[in-house]
Amino acid sequence: MKVGVLTGGGDCPGLNAVIRAVVRKGVNVHGFEFVGYRDGWKGPLEGLTMDLGIKQCRGILPRGGTILGSSRTNPFKIDGGVERIKDNLATEGVDALVAIGGEDTLGVATKLADLGVNVVGVPKTIDNDLSGTDFTFGFDTAVNIATEAIDRLHTTAESHHRVLVVEVMGRHAGWIALHSGIAGGASTVLIPEQPFDIDRVCDHVKKRFETHYAPIIVVAEGAVPKEGGDMTLVSGELDAFGHVRLGGIGDRLASEIEHRTGAEARAVVLGHIQRGGTPTAFDRWLATRFGLHAIDAVAERDFGVMVALRGKNIERVKLIEGTGELKLVSPAEYAEAEVFFG
Amino acid sequence: MKVGVLTGGGDCPGLNAVIRAVVRKGVNVHGFEFVGYRDGWKGPLEGLTMDLGIKQCRGILPRGGTILGSSRTNPFKIDGGVERIKDNLATEGVDALVAIGGEDTLGVATKLADLGVNVVGVPKTIDNDLSGTDFTFGFDTAVNIATEAIDRLHTTAESHHRVLVVEVMGRHAGWIALHSGIAGGASTVLIPEQPFDIDRVCDHVKKRFETHYAPIIVVAEGAVPKEGGDMTLVSGELDAFGHVRLGGIGDRLASEIEHRTGAEARAVVLGHIQRGGTPTAFDRWLATRFGLHAIDAVAERDFGVMVALRGKNIERVKLIEGTGELKLVSPAEYAEAEVFFG
Amino acid sequence: MKVGVLTGGGDCPGLNAVIRAVVRKGVNVHGFEFVGYRDGWKGPLEGLTMDLGIKQCRGILPRGGTILGSSRTNPFKIDGGVERIKDNLATEGVDALVAIGGEDTLGVATKLADLGVNVVGVPKTIDNDLSGTDFTFGFDTAVNIATEAIDRLHTTAESHHRVLVVEVMGRHAGWIALHSGIAGGASTVLIPEQPFDIDRVCDHVKKRFETHYAPIIVVAEGAVPKEGGDMTLVSGELDAFGHVRLGGIGDRLASEIEHRTGAEARAVVLGHIQRGGTPTAFDRWLATRFGLHAIDAVAERDFGVMVALRGKNIERVKLIEGTGELKLVSPAEYAEAEVFFG
Amino acid sequence: MKVGVLTGGGDCPGLNAVIRAVVRKGVNVHGFEFVGYRDGWKGPLEGLTMDLGIKQCRGILPRGGTILGSSRTNPFKIDGGVERIKDNLATEGVDALVAIGGEDTLGVATKLADLGVNVVGVPKTIDNDLSGTDFTFGFDTAVNIATEAIDRLHTTAESHHRVLVVEVMGRHAGWIALHSGIAGGASTVLIPEQPFDIDRVCDHVKKRFETHYAPIIVVAEGAVPKEGGDMTLVSGELDAFGHVRLGGIGDRLASEIEHRTGAEARAVVLGHIQRGGTPTAFDRWLATRFGLHAIDAVAERDFGVMVALRGKNIERVKLIEGTGELKLVSPAEYAEAEVFFG
Repeated sequence: MKVGVLTGGGDCPGLNAVIRAVVRKGVNVHGFEFVGYRDGWKGPLEGLTMDLGIKQCRGILPRGGTILGSSRTNPFKIDGGVERIKDNLATEGVDALVAIGGEDTLGVATKLADLGVNVVGVPKTIDNDLSGTDFTFGFDTAVNIATEAIDRLHTTAESHHRVLVVEVMGRHAGWIALHSGIAGGASTVLIPEQPFDIDRVCDHVKKRFETHYAPIIVVAEGAVPKEGGDMTLVSGELDAFGHVRLGGIGDRLASEIEHRTGAEARAVVLGHIQRGGTPTAFDRWLATRFGLHAIDAVAERDFGVMVALRGKNIERVKLIEGTGELKLVSPAEYAEAEVFFG
Repeated sequence: MKVGVLTGGGDCPGLNAVIRAVVRKGVNVHGFEFVGYRDGWKGPLEGLTMDLGIKQCRGILPRGGTILGSSRTNPFKIDGGVERIKDNLATEGVDALVAIGGEDTLGVATKLADLGVNVVGVPKTIDNDLSGTDFTFGFDTAVNIATEAIDRLHTTAESHHRVLVVEVMGRHAGWIALHSGIAGGASTVLIPEQPFDIDRVCDHVKKRFETHYAPIIVVAEGAVPKEGGDMTLVSGELDAFGHVRLGGIGDRLASEIEHRTGAEARAVVLGHIQRGGTPTAFDRWLATRFGLHAIDAVAERDFGVMVALRGKNIERVKLIEGTGELKLVSPAEYAEAEVFFG
Repeated sequence: MKVGVLTGGGDCPGLNAVIRAVVRKGVNVHGFEFVGYRDGWKGPLEGLTMDLGIKQCRGILPRGGTILGSSRTNPFKIDGGVERIKDNLATEGVDALVAIGGEDTLGVATKLADLGVNVVGVPKTIDNDLSGTDFTFGFDTAVNIATEAIDRLHTTAESHHRVLVVEVMGRHAGWIALHSGIAGGASTVLIPEQPFDIDRVCDHVKKRFETHYAPIIVVAEGAVPKEGGDMTLVSGELDAFGHVRLGGIGDRLASEIEHRTGAEARAVVLGHIQRGGTPTAFDRWLATRFGLHAIDAVAERDFGVMVALRGKNIERVKLIEGTGELKLVSPAEYAEAEVFFG
Repeated sequence: MKVGVLTGGGDCPGLNAVIRAVVRKGVNVHGFEFVGYRDGWKGPLEGLTMDLGIKQCRGILPRGGTILGSSRTNPFKIDGGVERIKDNLATEGVDALVAIGGEDTLGVATKLADLGVNVVGVPKTIDNDLSGTDFTFGFDTAVNIATEAIDRLHTTAESHHRVLVVEVMGRHAGWIALHSGIAGGASTVLIPEQPFDIDRVCDHVKKRFETHYAPIIVVAEGAVPKEGGDMTLVSGELDAFGHVRLGGIGDRLASEIEHRTGAEARAVVLGHIQRGGTPTAFDRWLATRFGLHAIDAVAERDFGVMVALRGKNIERVKLIEGTGELKLVSPAEYAEAEVFFG
């Protein structure tokens, strides 16, 4: 059997570990041949391939990024895209695909599976917001990087009696903010699932300074103020390219706190350093296990599924389960940690 | 209510995070008072106490070790030990105990609970071999330290065409060896649960050198050769104090491989650096959640239980469940990874 | 003799290591007493003191920040400030001061020394731009943090075919940018000492993409385009508080590159994480040696001096030498590394 | 011009950074061609070559080890060795050699230079004991790894009231022990240059425990007790292969302390993890600068020299200066830090 492998969407530590496990077990146990598709769905769409075997996977386990490259190309948004993929797979003699990616990449996989393409998915999201799996690889690395940053900021906050706002990833889900906030000993954590009350945040800042400790506020990039919460500085944030600048919640929040409380406030936006570089041991272990189980699914011709972590076990679930709905922080999960925030 | 807290057994990153969470929630939510017992069960046995409140818990979240100190004192091995504990708790006015520890410490807790002491347990073992919980805190930190060490050793092994043997913790269970071996890309992992065949290990070494890659062998301290596996260098390892020296499996294995294959082999024994220092984000998060749930159990007067991680949830299980039986690496779990070892 | 110690200016890893060394040698070898002044020059100005002895210095060596607190208070800008300092020193019975700080803090020390205050300086600047010393502590930590960030960004840049702009500290001097750019393998480094040509930067970006490698551009916060270099997006950067926002050179550069080359570009602004947290071994060693030599200068009543690293030796130089002129990256030092940037 | 490059002796973080800098500047500025010699002097001796150009140097900056491999082969100990090297260089058309190595490798280079081979040396020793240069690359990485280990051990020592002995590299010189001991806050540092008094070490241990702090003793592998210092456990350390086992000073010291003081003592032998893996920023920067200056020396046909760090400058010194005499820790340098040890 000849198997194609692709990685789509944003960078995520552990992608190479999945690829290596898929190939090592595929070659050594199942006797498969492999072809690497470059740059996500663009690869099978445009027939962009690379050699992929034991040799290409040497030494990649600890490396961030993906040797296959990535993109956000969606073949369903391109005329005749699906046919071109099918043709290219046929031309190349590829029997099955392992698609490693998040909501978008696996969304395409789900639809292609319905159209008869043999595909097995591996869930990937640094934000940990894919349903169907307890954790995704990359998340633990991001949380550790954010936690280390918070550790470093404590001493600055306290030496300078300053408010420090740390903006972490999480457009829709506050998992990185919540976990790194708990692990880093933040004094407040703001997440997209719970619109925040700017008055309460500022009260907290003032109270915290009374105790001689400086506040560290962790905020997910997708966090928003409550309706009616009067954030003075919300306007005017689009730059010439239509990108939201200045409007980053971290910067806005720091300005607002400074404005309202008179305390010096600074924002640190962690950005891309959360998603690159070598994965933690947990992420390498999880990614490796995902890869091993994904290629077993291929060997058993159990297509249209993705692998998932449930407790300590790797299981298979229907692709649609993983991509149907985002996994958000529940009110109970947020409340559990709230004793530290306030 | 007045609650005593103690930590027993070996050092483990995350102990302070548990203490902090117990106290923060105990004081702020439940309105409890606390007393710290020093040095494990020795504390309540000898009435060794220290102040324990919000103030003592400031800044301890990222710190390894335990502000309470630890010991391996077992009151059941001391004449009248149990009575002295009961008396001291009564004198101090302590209504309930939170005991944080491993098999031994929680074993004592189990028996005391049967004798009417109000106790809630928090499981702690760096080796991850306590039943009843998916993971214990400290384990993730140990695995990351071992993985980083393996990462560092790869370049030396390859630049010098040497065999490197890495001895990691794990007297009875191979969890640290297995996880760090997978994460670090070891070429062989030897664990206590699966006695190893020294001939096979040496064959692997030779085969590995044929491919121009150097072997890295991760071995748990409790791994043993198969019966009849003729390890030339087993004899004479007791030193003047009755400690096993030289006989460390890492050193012995390196000597044996050198002897049999002619390849240069060196052992690195990671030892105590695996159990000290700042915990990873995962361990801080898990330890914090254990602490929060343990003090809730106290508040609900649900004694004789310990907290446990099941999937993503913290649950309560009977103390006896956690201490009854060791959790070992199953043949299936070992086999899953074996494609990389051979 | 009774000695006062204070730390002024921005946070810098190693401040606590200096304090500890000053106190340990002062007490154990010279038999001095100490008093800690809080929050920089505000301490002796307002008589804000804290106990400072062996006990207060336990465990602080690896910790970032400063146990004494800091501020940017300048007594020469306050009516009667100098007299108040002299009075407070006399009241407290303080014979000499050890002042740890940068240009501003040591500038005050220089003037006070001229006015008869017994003061010894310890140079501190994360930017490494103080004259008179080869290196300052804190700099090595900042460079390592920036280098790790660049390491992490390489994989994202390459997996996504993106330009990544990393903004590091350095308002006047490009040392952090230069050292971390070399160490991290940046493809271009822009520093304040060498106004950059935006056309050349964009040419570099295009050329780099032709080779299938993604550009990583390290830019010091104080870097500026050449006169006439038409940066479209320079305008409108003051926010309601008069802070320069959006105008951060990293964000502006990313926007400009995107605009001109059509390549996706993202900025990462490292900010405060460069100046907090545990110091590297080099910084702890340098800070400790600075402290030991500073208290020796006090013991020898050699006032009006600061300690400095020259080669491997710690020497004493007049305070004015350290604060007179900034140490900038010379054209030759920049040119040395330019073979990598092009 | 065609230039050969080789790396000899033990692994050392930064070797690849030197190779990369030599090749990048050699190709881009000087227009040289390169050939890589494998495994130290074995390469030119046996004609073992590999392609070496810009391409082979991609991505190697952060990686430990050496892409050229290494060995301890000494052509002067092999009949006709020098002639074979000359012949192989001639056959390959190699005009000059860049030899990267320590005392042994550069010793060979020194003699070959005398015999008319065009060679430029780059000093390499993790132990920092080469004369002629203030620092060598790899040293800073080793010191940081040792310091991190000491940081981790503090909490275990204190939680368990144990003596921890940390054995670090340094057969002849105590630089790693001294720097990591200072940076890690060790309570005693023992180095080869200063034979230690076991009675005094044990007195220190006892005194330390009286203060409720646990002792951490850093010992260089080459440290020895004073003549007449009665170390009970010195005997019997050769194993069947003539390797010194058990006799490691760390293990012996721990046993001896336990025996004499009754306190529990454990040794941690850091071993090879000190010399592998990614270099620190300082080491990458120094190694890169060494490489740039070495290839400039080749371009100027200034042979028989090695590059050296003096203050902040890279200079050229005669090869014999670097290899003539070991650079040891002076009594004054040791005494400077002694205030912390005792």
